Amino acid sequence: MIDTPFTFTLPLPQVIPSRVDNHIERRLSALRGQFLDEESFIKMLSSEDKLIYEVYEIQRPQLDGELIMGISIVHPGKVGKEFFMTKGHFHTILETSEIYYCLRGEGYMVMETPEGEASVEALSPGNVLYVPPRWAHRSVCTARQEDLVTFFAYPANAGHDYGTIEQQGFRKLVMDGSDSPEIVDNPRWTKSR
Amino acid sequence: MIDTPFTFTLPLPQVIPSRVDNHIERRLSALRGQFLDEESFIKMLSSEDKLIYEVYEIQRPQLDGELIMGISIVHPGKVGKEFFMTKGHFHTILETSEIYYCLRGEGYMVMETPEGEASVEALSPGNVLYVPPRWAHRSVCTARQEDLVTFFAYPANAGHDYGTIEQQGFRKLVMDGSDSPEIVDNPRWTKSR
Repeated sequence: MIDTPFTFTLPLPQVIPSRVDNHIERRLSALRGQFLDEESFIKMLSSEDKLIYEVYEIQRPQLDGELIMGISIVHPGKVGKEFFMTKGHFHTILETSEIYYCLRGEGYMVMETPEGEASVEALSPGNVLYVPPRWAHRSVCTARQEDLVTFFAYPANAGHDYGTIEQQGFRKLVMDGSDSPEIVDNPRWTKSR
Repeated sequence: MIDTPFTFTLPLPQVIPSRVDNHIERRLSALRGQFLDEESFIKMLSSEDKLIYEVYEIQRPQLDGELIMGISIVHPGKVGKEFFMTKGHFHTILETSEIYYCLRGEGYMVMETPEGEASVEALSPGNVLYVPPRWAHRSVCTARQEDLVTFFAYPANAGHDYGTIEQQGFRKLVMDGSDSPEIVDNPRWTKSR
């Protein structure tokens, strides 16, 4: 682990960092149970286990005071009418925040607290988003052809809790509407967790 | 203080955030004793207390787990042969890091640890710099006409210790050489602090 200062670049247009410690690929099968239209999910999966999103991480010791950063790339596409998205997670240490800086594409960050407060914020290039402590977050790509690319940074001791979201998803869904993306209530979401 | 997620934009070319909680302006007089050429400093100050750098901060509660972010703008210019620069500081909680993402301009980050290890990293658009815990940091603008603009983020409980650097500056200086910027040893720097 490097303990001296270091730099890396985010070369356009692909924005893949010049330094990468960890490259995560999440395919359709990793999002089983997350998309509303299960019939479309099964049909799509039977033809190809598509790449939905990728994360390029620059690692640091998982200690308080350190920051982990990287690039998140959500590819364009839909399962039924629901746009491709990340699994989404709470931080294991709930009282930790995260910063996103959108570099390319169009989309949304879908967020909620353990108490069920919901927030959906639009992302486009030049946008910075602050996800305060306690807010689970999932990014959604709504462009037809372009990736949603964000630079992120969060406290290195935060950790990831995927299990809570896997149970019933987020309170809000981002669906392809007649003219533009629509934010709708998730019919499978209930208050009793 | 907002506790729901929020976004803001960093509109080009000026990159001043659409949301600002705190705008800091540092003029030449605030850097007294920091530039090597004191004669040039006094002469320059007698004609005008020039604006050297600005910081636009988005504030958050100064708690562990929160992140403070903002934009730093160092204006072009020199005192004698030494380029305009920020005051530079350690974090009060020494074991906290900082991330810089360069959006415009050209320059350097000058860094050192309390033990006197030194590092100088170049900054240009698309460059991300990680300042690990324990490293004091000062940014320097080396372009002739363009501002050095960086987006930064650091743990909100980090705090700023300017006093240590004010005593004898950083170990390295960034001077205008015959062809390009030169990194030189600071003759006033000594190990005994």
